Amino acid sequence: MEPQTLFWLVPAASLIALLFAAIFFFNMKKADEGTDRMKEIAGYVREGAMAYLKQQYKVVAIFFAIIAVVFGVMAYFGLQNNIVPVAFLTGGIFSGLAGFIGMKTATYASGRVAEACRDEHDGLNRGLKLAFRSGAVLGLTVVGFGLLDISAWYLILDNTGLVRGEGVSKLVEITTIMLTFGMGASLQALFARVGGGIYTKAADVGADLVGKTEFHFNEDDPRNPATIADNVGDNVGDVAGMGADLYESYAGSILASAALGAAATATLVAQGKLAADMAYGEGLKMVMAPMVIGAVGAILSVLGIFIVRTKQGATQSQLMAALNRGINFSGVLIALAAAGVLYLLGIENWLGLWGSIVIGLVVGILIGKVTEYYTSFEYKPVKFIAENATTGPATVIISGIGVGMISTCWPVIFIVLGTIGAYLCAAGGLEFSSANLSMGLYGIGIAAVGMLSTLGLTLATDAYGPISDNAGGNAEMSGLGESVRSRTDALDALGNTTAATGKGFAIGSAALTALALLASYIEELKIAAGRLGDADITLSLFSGPVGKGTEVATWDIATFMSKFEVTLMNPKVLLGIFIGAMLSFLFCGLTMNAVGRAAKRMVEEVRSQLSDKEVLEGRKKADYARCVGISTQGAQREMIVPSLIAVVVPILTGLFMGVAGVFGLLAGGLAGGFVLAVFMANSGGAWDNAKKFIETGDAAFCGKHTPIHDASVVGDTVGDPFKDTSGPSLNILIKLMSMVSIVTAGLNIVFSLL
Amino acid sequence: MEPQTLFWLVPAASLIALLFAAIFFFNMKKADEGTDRMKEIAGYVREGAMAYLKQQYKVVAIFFAIIAVVFGVMAYFGLQNNIVPVAFLTGGIFSGLAGFIGMKTATYASGRVAEACRDEHDGLNRGLKLAFRSGAVLGLTVVGFGLLDISAWYLILDNTGLVRGEGVSKLVEITTIMLTFGMGASLQALFARVGGGIYTKAADVGADLVGKTEFHFNEDDPRNPATIADNVGDNVGDVAGMGADLYESYAGSILASAALGAAATATLVAQGKLAADMAYGEGLKMVMAPMVIGAVGAILSVLGIFIVRTKQGATQSQLMAALNRGINFSGVLIALAAAGVLYLLGIENWLGLWGSIVIGLVVGILIGKVTEYYTSFEYKPVKFIAENATTGPATVIISGIGVGMISTCWPVIFIVLGTIGAYLCAAGGLEFSSANLSMGLYGIGIAAVGMLSTLGLTLATDAYGPISDNAGGNAEMSGLGESVRSRTDALDALGNTTAATGKGFAIGSAALTALALLASYIEELKIAAGRLGDADITLSLFSGPVGKGTEVATWDIATFMSKFEVTLMNPKVLLGIFIGAMLSFLFCGLTMNAVGRAAKRMVEEVRSQLSDKEVLEGRKKADYARCVGISTQGAQREMIVPSLIAVVVPILTGLFMGVAGVFGLLAGGLAGGFVLAVFMANSGGAWDNAKKFIETGDAAFCGKHTPIHDASVVGDTVGDPFKDTSGPSLNILIKLMSMVSIVTAGLNIVFSLL
Repeated sequence: MEPQTLFWLVPAASLIALLFAAIFFFNMKKADEGTDRMKEIAGYVREGAMAYLKQQYKVVAIFFAIIAVVFGVMAYFGLQNNIVPVAFLTGGIFSGLAGFIGMKTATYASGRVAEACRDEHDGLNRGLKLAFRSGAVLGLTVVGFGLLDISAWYLILDNTGLVRGEGVSKLVEITTIMLTFGMGASLQALFARVGGGIYTKAADVGADLVGKTEFHFNEDDPRNPATIADNVGDNVGDVAGMGADLYESYAGSILASAALGAAATATLVAQGKLAADMAYGEGLKMVMAPMVIGAVGAILSVLGIFIVRTKQGATQSQLMAALNRGINFSGVLIALAAAGVLYLLGIENWLGLWGSIVIGLVVGILIGKVTEYYTSFEYKPVKFIAENATTGPATVIISGIGVGMISTCWPVIFIVLGTIGAYLCAAGGLEFSSANLSMGLYGIGIAAVGMLSTLGLTLATDAYGPISDNAGGNAEMSGLGESVRSRTDALDALGNTTAATGKGFAIGSAALTALALLASYIEELKIAAGRLGDADITLSLFSGPVGKGTEVATWDIATFMSKFEVTLMNPKVLLGIFIGAMLSFLFCGLTMNAVGRAAKRMVEEVRSQLSDKEVLEGRKKADYARCVGISTQGAQREMIVPSLIAVVVPILTGLFMGVAGVFGLLAGGLAGGFVLAVFMANSGGAWDNAKKFIETGDAAFCGKHTPIHDASVVGDTVGDPFKDTSGPSLNILIKLMSMVSIVTAGLNIVFSLL
Repeated sequence: MEPQTLFWLVPAASLIALLFAAIFFFNMKKADEGTDRMKEIAGYVREGAMAYLKQQYKVVAIFFAIIAVVFGVMAYFGLQNNIVPVAFLTGGIFSGLAGFIGMKTATYASGRVAEACRDEHDGLNRGLKLAFRSGAVLGLTVVGFGLLDISAWYLILDNTGLVRGEGVSKLVEITTIMLTFGMGASLQALFARVGGGIYTKAADVGADLVGKTEFHFNEDDPRNPATIADNVGDNVGDVAGMGADLYESYAGSILASAALGAAATATLVAQGKLAADMAYGEGLKMVMAPMVIGAVGAILSVLGIFIVRTKQGATQSQLMAALNRGINFSGVLIALAAAGVLYLLGIENWLGLWGSIVIGLVVGILIGKVTEYYTSFEYKPVKFIAENATTGPATVIISGIGVGMISTCWPVIFIVLGTIGAYLCAAGGLEFSSANLSMGLYGIGIAAVGMLSTLGLTLATDAYGPISDNAGGNAEMSGLGESVRSRTDALDALGNTTAATGKGFAIGSAALTALALLASYIEELKIAAGRLGDADITLSLFSGPVGKGTEVATWDIATFMSKFEVTLMNPKVLLGIFIGAMLSFLFCGLTMNAVGRAAKRMVEEVRSQLSDKEVLEGRKKADYARCVGISTQGAQREMIVPSLIAVVVPILTGLFMGVAGVFGLLAGGLAGGFVLAVFMANSGGAWDNAKKFIETGDAAFCGKHTPIHDASVVGDTVGDPFKDTSGPSLNILIKLMSMVSIVTAGLNIVFSLL
């Protein structure tokens, strides 16, 4: 079938996804909101969340405006295409919008889920369905906006005169410009994750440290002044932050693959392995493949959502099975459909590329399984940490860090094997040549697309976690009684299990996408060199050792790498790797301390409020707004420096160490950041569940409100910023640094030649 | 002056260092051992330490035997020089011997230092001098054995028929073979650091958790059953472990530089920049330079030790000044002497190389200053952590991890700037060519030599820390009273400050040496290729894409890197970087958990003993031997797997991913390991001093035995394995992986060509 025809699946799928998102949203709003007290609580949370998001978008808007102006200036001097500033802005806007809608939905939904859980006969099932479908609003919004943005930009760039060039080189330029909207999405996502992560964990840590540890309150006790801030945090961090994050992953993986597909075709032509007159047609197939697979995945996710339904009075494990049925169904279907898409597109090596996609899916699942093994209390590692609670908080921390560090082993091995596998399938061999490499990298990119193709559904299962969590909060604060709370807890527990799989996909796809983006960086360098070489003002620059701009554009990969001296023995590369590895640590350190500082202020506020006997005994209402204010201020103030680092350091590295240094930086940041992210996420998850294991009372040393339990709470508290602030932000950091390098490639090439 | 003449300074300096080590040792033994109770305590510690070391050497001997046999087989098949197995063994033996002698000295000294501190008039000064001179035994033994081993091997290889080849290629082969004794030293050091680190921290954590936290005992309370094990641990980990560690750093940096000097000369000849008949003479100068600078440094260190003397009744800050005077004096003198050595050797660019050496010294000092800033309670970071103790242990941990992660920033920047500076000075420019690179790398290597040239003295200041610590233990257990204890505490505090500088040198030199070893890996690959290409049995292997062995040996760096596809876009390189970064985490995770497990057994033992009222009230003697046994067993059992990883993974990576993969592994391991090591060392140090700050009572929230103090003890306990087990072991891991790759280069080249 013609690629142009199949392309229309992309906007169509986008509309379908957005349509169902709207349907689920309005259906949810029709549900009963419960008692006045429940409405009041939900109102507080909604207001706090909206107030925060407004504040956040204001700060972010300033950044975006500044960067857009800088890009405009760069474009004026021929260092970038003129359309880049606009593309950058739309990426940011859509990413923010996806988070906003998801959060809006979640804050409307959670009270209603609590109300649904009040049903003594069918509460659990009704709660699950409502929470899950509300989560699906986020999943489908992310996927829908992603595909919308992609298809709209493709249509605009393909059909207007904004892009020069003909044939396959036009495709290369279109797809590379589209990557810059990925940068907008990444930057928005980083702010959302870091800001939201600081907000939620400052509140959570503050609420737990005083409420749980000092006063032995239950979670969400209405006397705890930080409890509303804690519930707002779930929405701000886990819903809005995660939405922006995964929007960026999703769009980024499709865009990177499309750019690599165009580049691979251009390389094949340059190497004489593809006739020039065939080039555009073949290139178009490769560019369309990731988009169409994404579209098919979106449609199948909608189907999968409808499959998640259970009979009345289902048990917990039946509910889990229902959820898994939806995910497995969509997974298998997407795998089959991808084969169909590739075949229909008429790609010669469709079977090989299909292999890459399946490998991507499998690696995502495997990383999820490892995450589950290291973070679920069904298995040894978490039990080991729980046992260490018997000797106090210090050994809980030591063992949790030990387990988290060890847990990095298998994900790295899976990524290594998966990358080699995807490369082999796509390229047909491992030898290092231009043709081979460009196809192999395309395979890696499309493996990431495969991994994320069921995002509409997996994100739904992710997002319903915080919704259920908030429902529990609402139930507790409204005094709905033990049985309702136990149902919301059951829903929450279900969410924790599926979240492990979700994290596997998020981090795995980040690694693959970032690997693919390295290749896009090379392509953009070539384009920038071509653009610079043709422009009069900069021609004089190219008298250095490298060559004229137009020359650079036609180099093959080996020539390119050796001319720019991107070899491991070049000190600039080695030192770039050092800086990259260090940046991940610096970034995590800054965000950890940000949480620490905000949490400390929160603790002091909560302590001071609870020193009032009347508040402590529940006779006087706690001042929730002050705690909300502390979290908001802390997040706004502290999110700026870490986010700036991601933007500024790649540019400075390019300035001082040229292309070779940037390559080192990206490779070091990718490897170091990936390992650190897995460590932090898994340590955090393991501590959380070690505490939960102790609360179950399954082992002799278990039980609540004992010194052993207190020790495990310390672990859980330390784990909060690990797993919900620093760890997930690293996924974005890795990709944003690549995106920044791609967008500023024109600068790098000038610096390298100076 | 003739290089051959100056060479004799090396064995001479070695003998001088060893002679003064012997003098200090026998002088120390003449000192009074104190009361019977003091002798008894010292005897327990000595016995425990010796028993442990014997056990450790048994296990290590088995490993060394196996590896030596494997090397023998490799040599038989032409994959290695025949002398390698023997060189490997001597490195291990000398490294172990240095640790053994240092520990023997320390265990004899500490009781005597306690006795010296009993002198009411001059106790502090007498104690300092005794402890410092006993520490100097370790410093001078390490330096003396290092120079002895180096000069002996050089004489043997130069004057017998063991090495084929003529002129500069003979120099290249000699120096590369000598690197393999570096591998022996590294492996011994890794076992010593990991085993000793587990031992000491299992005991320390166990003793603190029950003794201090649960029963509010003082440090070293004789009722605490783990207290002897704790004191043994100081000797086993901080003396024997550190001795073996720094022996390896010291010898490694000299050997790597010598090898790079020979290689640089060969490259200059191959590039036509040096006449062939001048080659041997010039090469010899470059090979001799690091050895002779080391020798001069050793002699000046002895001088420096004698400068450390103070007038009667000196204050603490005067003592510190005395110590600093010795270090500064030696530092300035060595810097001047190095210029003289380079000039006398007649090296053309002597001024440039001198610049590299000075840069090395300065970077070491700067990293030490950063370490001090982040770990001393005089500055903000530690105070910040201490303040976080007011909100409980969780915020102590969060802020400590945050501070440690942020603290990686400056050391990386200093290493980056220092590397570029040393490279520039030595090579005269940054452009990437064979001649430039080989000289630049030599500059980096010799910067590491400069950094470590005063080791004889700096190690003395390091080693006297654990000696004073043990003296304090002896005083406490012997019931010598508050005033004696306060003097030993003062000595101990002095040691903590100088230790920060020592750590800067250790980690900084590890990074520079490892960078230099990457270059040695290339040289060894060329030699191995030449050896293989000439041997009949393996000639058939060289029909692959790379070329015949003899051809490989003459390639320049750019050709080499591109033929072996060591470019960053090669997936094998990228994946190698991933694996390298992950290995550091895996290694730390395993060692952290090892400490956790052993400490848990220790806690249970101590609790069970103290449940006996009579032991608790001091009426019945605690069973120290059981605790010593737990630490010994834990260390022996747990040190094997982490150490194996360092040996096995580089070989496997070479097997599956060839030379390109190994390069990635080493670069990723180096960058990731360096950053992780700095993080762990600084977090650990900061927690330790945050606790000490709270104990000083300088701030409103301070004071002992309060919940705030307890929270800070949790941080200190978590920091113990950070800073004394996992962190310092990483320095060795980084270099050992390079050493293993160098020694198995013959295998790698075969795998790459298969």
